[in-house]
Amino acid sequence: MRFLPILTWGRDYNRSALSSDLMAALIVTIMLIPQSLAYALLAGLPAEAGLYASIVPILLYTVFGTSRALAVGPVAVVSLMTAAALSNIVEQGTMGYAVAALSLAGLSGVMLLAMGLFRLGFIANFLSHPVIAGFITASGLIIAASQLKHILGIDAQGHNLLELVLSLVENAPQTNWITAVIGIAATGFLFWVRKGLKPLLVRLGLGAGLTGTLVKTGPVAVVVLTTFAVWALGLADQGVRIVGVVPQSLPPFTLPSFSPSLLSQLLLPAFLISIIGFVESISVAQTLAAKKRQRIDPDQELIGLGAANIGASLTGGFPVTGGFSRSVVNFDAGAETPAAGAFTAFGLAIAAIALTPLVYFLPKATLSATIIVAVLSLVDFSILKRSWAYSKADFAAVLTTILATLLLGVEIGVSAGVVLSILLHLYASSKPHIAEVGQVPGTEHYRNILRHDVITDPSVVTLRVDESLYFANARYLEEKIQNRVAGDTSIRHVILQCSAINEIDLSALESLEAINERLREMDVKLHLSEVKGPVMDRLREQHFLSDMTGRVFLSQFEAAQAVKAQP
Amino acid sequence: MRFLPILTWGRDYNRSALSSDLMAALIVTIMLIPQSLAYALLAGLPAEAGLYASIVPILLYTVFGTSRALAVGPVAVVSLMTAAALSNIVEQGTMGYAVAALSLAGLSGVMLLAMGLFRLGFIANFLSHPVIAGFITASGLIIAASQLKHILGIDAQGHNLLELVLSLVENAPQTNWITAVIGIAATGFLFWVRKGLKPLLVRLGLGAGLTGTLVKTGPVAVVVLTTFAVWALGLADQGVRIVGVVPQSLPPFTLPSFSPSLLSQLLLPAFLISIIGFVESISVAQTLAAKKRQRIDPDQELIGLGAANIGASLTGGFPVTGGFSRSVVNFDAGAETPAAGAFTAFGLAIAAIALTPLVYFLPKATLSATIIVAVLSLVDFSILKRSWAYSKADFAAVLTTILATLLLGVEIGVSAGVVLSILLHLYASSKPHIAEVGQVPGTEHYRNILRHDVITDPSVVTLRVDESLYFANARYLEEKIQNRVAGDTSIRHVILQCSAINEIDLSALESLEAINERLREMDVKLHLSEVKGPVMDRLREQHFLSDMTGRVFLSQFEAAQAVKAQP
Repeated sequence: MRFLPILTWGRDYNRSALSSDLMAALIVTIMLIPQSLAYALLAGLPAEAGLYASIVPILLYTVFGTSRALAVGPVAVVSLMTAAALSNIVEQGTMGYAVAALSLAGLSGVMLLAMGLFRLGFIANFLSHPVIAGFITASGLIIAASQLKHILGIDAQGHNLLELVLSLVENAPQTNWITAVIGIAATGFLFWVRKGLKPLLVRLGLGAGLTGTLVKTGPVAVVVLTTFAVWALGLADQGVRIVGVVPQSLPPFTLPSFSPSLLSQLLLPAFLISIIGFVESISVAQTLAAKKRQRIDPDQELIGLGAANIGASLTGGFPVTGGFSRSVVNFDAGAETPAAGAFTAFGLAIAAIALTPLVYFLPKATLSATIIVAVLSLVDFSILKRSWAYSKADFAAVLTTILATLLLGVEIGVSAGVVLSILLHLYASSKPHIAEVGQVPGTEHYRNILRHDVITDPSVVTLRVDESLYFANARYLEEKIQNRVAGDTSIRHVILQCSAINEIDLSALESLEAINERLREMDVKLHLSEVKGPVMDRLREQHFLSDMTGRVFLSQFEAAQAVKAQP
Repeated sequence: MRFLPILTWGRDYNRSALSSDLMAALIVTIMLIPQSLAYALLAGLPAEAGLYASIVPILLYTVFGTSRALAVGPVAVVSLMTAAALSNIVEQGTMGYAVAALSLAGLSGVMLLAMGLFRLGFIANFLSHPVIAGFITASGLIIAASQLKHILGIDAQGHNLLELVLSLVENAPQTNWITAVIGIAATGFLFWVRKGLKPLLVRLGLGAGLTGTLVKTGPVAVVVLTTFAVWALGLADQGVRIVGVVPQSLPPFTLPSFSPSLLSQLLLPAFLISIIGFVESISVAQTLAAKKRQRIDPDQELIGLGAANIGASLTGGFPVTGGFSRSVVNFDAGAETPAAGAFTAFGLAIAAIALTPLVYFLPKATLSATIIVAVLSLVDFSILKRSWAYSKADFAAVLTTILATLLLGVEIGVSAGVVLSILLHLYASSKPHIAEVGQVPGTEHYRNILRHDVITDPSVVTLRVDESLYFANARYLEEKIQNRVAGDTSIRHVILQCSAINEIDLSALESLEAINERLREMDVKLHLSEVKGPVMDRLREQHFLSDMTGRVFLSQFEAAQAVKAQP
């Protein structure tokens, strides 16, 4: 069972689940066709790659994944990261580009699989929520900007938002106005479907679930309408760029490149894509699983996504992950088991064989419109306001991530956010809050002397450290104590209240030994109070406790009483 | 006062302090002459550079430093790091090498100064005690091995211990036996002084302080004896390598190179030398200050060491820091103020002018013997045993530091140790200890259900998280709770006992919101108990508390009572 969750749910599969799954699959398939084509375009690949990337990967996830509603395939942010990674290495539109995309998917798949097998999923936890929020927002902006050229029917490129915008402005005079009309109308219509139609349908009495699903099929309507218009009016001859010939075929068997120089260049992007994809996927999966009180096993999810990406690399695809919108549609449409995914794959396979001639006249501007409307819903600057109000460190991480992503690119952006948030965390824990405490009159409680009116004794200093002691803050504690005691000759006892100390590492133990020795030189005794069980267990094996000039007390009150009794 | 501590102690300077300081200076000067020459040799520089590096730097530290007993100058580990950094870039013995040493000292000085001005001394705290211990031990071994060639009078080189040892073995047949006799005899004598003479003198009734000082002058005796022997017996003509001509001069005015390519190559080594030097210096300073109940200001120490290194770069020196043995001698000899350092500088200046002709016949083997005996006292593998017993993470950091330093060099060694200890710390805090707790019968206390015989209620799960909540462990908590609750439909309440949570960052807050929502979907209420004041202050400003399905309780007992009363 460990590696094949399908055995768990497959055993109880019945007719009721089958009909639910079939219905969900039909709806998801219809929604996925334009989305898949669009994300292939975003990734810089031919449209059919989007379909291929949705077929075998879904099947493999069905076998290996633990979420019952997750729909795996191309998603916006990962497609953008794919384009960013590959366009640094090979020219877009070449055969080498497509092969590099296969290699990127394969490499990412192997990494995900390895992380799953070695239970390294915790690595993704170092991507903080604010960093992800900032990264998604910045990525959404870049994606939207990158699609404007298709909306206007011009050429434009750039490695960051600034270059892109400048290039767009420079080439704006070449705008193809027919394309622009189609693109802007499609974008406007899709926004209306989302913002205007949805409330309308709800007011008309349709259920929220059905409304949501209907709204999600908006892109299909636009695709049909604009394709028909281009065909009927012969607009392709007027310079409107169209999808053109898409081969009628099942996903082909492909092999990624094993060139060491290519793979080494793809190593970092593949790692970042794996982590970002995993985080996006697992948070969707857990949200949906909670609604039905189901479990998600993160390590098994890594294996499922790894298999899906390896599948993508062998069948003409590119990096995939569990997508938010498609998974929600799948769930809302009633998918009960991963079999819905398998039926979706079947539907898309039929589309790849039978429907591809129909998209010949589909304007690229329409696909770009669907992308823009999809990603702009990801753009959310409220995280800046929220983090500013809650924590300046989180705010710094968000702002850095957004700015670095916009100005320096997606890879540097997300890396900078992660590194900064780790550094800020380490910095904060290296200067822990250390409160000098005194007795609250008439109680056995001890509180910060700066915040409360408490009783103190000039010969006793009690310090409460609000953080585990480890190498980064051990020396800080040494300094704090020495500076507190050195100038005040009335002090005879220092008590460390250890109630908030969950761990003491070897550096901190040696610092405590140094503190003990230095206090001994100053004729001051060191005591500990309220040491936690596991911390005490480890200290007991060390000679520190017997070398200590003072004692260990169960409670701070007891410590203060005992010390007061001494001369 | 902030930047000129000299104004504090200078005001009260009197005759008694003067005589103590003069006495200490005399003893330190005698001890420093051979040591300075030896460390210059270790750094790959001409002998006089060691004297120069001890004169102006001491004076500058006297003005800017806060320790009253610290003696600044060349020290073993920093000299080794200097040699390691420079020999990668320029050939030893060339003019360029000496200029690069000036640049390294200057760059390190500027870095230390900047860290002091911007109060960045906390950076050094990320060097954990076990990493330092491992690094010093490995460095001691490398230094000793690098000196063996002088003891044997052969050539040998290598970028790591293995290469060095192989080169020594290969060239051993060329051993100059007269050199070897001098070198081995000197080494043996110095070991005897340390191990045999010291106990003897103590048994004869001399004080520990005086004995320590006498023992420290052992190197001077060896220098005098072997120099005389080489001169009297004409051993220089027999192939015994000698120090030779040392210019009779005050420290010259020099300028470091400002070549961008050189400086960029020196950036990392200068940073590491600054940090290692600072850590060594500050721990000596604090140990000595505690004995006299004095304060050390770490930021001001950075400024003092920065000034000293800039001074070294302008006066023909190389990187310096506060040395352990010389500072202890200074302290034991009775130094009362930093003026002792100024007098030492004066003594060394006289030596540089007047005594240098006397060291013409000093054999290099003697200097190597003093280095070997000094550094072997730094080699201490007990840290391996100690860390193994106390904490496997600390053990891994020590072992990695030692092996990487020995096999890959000092820079990689110390960097690997720091990075690994940070990663292990992050890993540990990303999987915090989460205990499910129950009520100890007859009390208001709640303890781990796995460790104690406690009362539990099947409809209530109480979890105590023994760590602050932040991005790296937020998702782990989500998984833990979801997995605990998903399979157990009798659960109606989840209580998080927050007594050990010192902080909740924005990621963790959002995870708590997600947990709250997911539990709501499962019809389970989320409660918090024993939330700390500062954590509660920040939560109060957020909508999380009002969105929460359950309540916040002051004590865990109260929470359990209230929840039990609910349907």
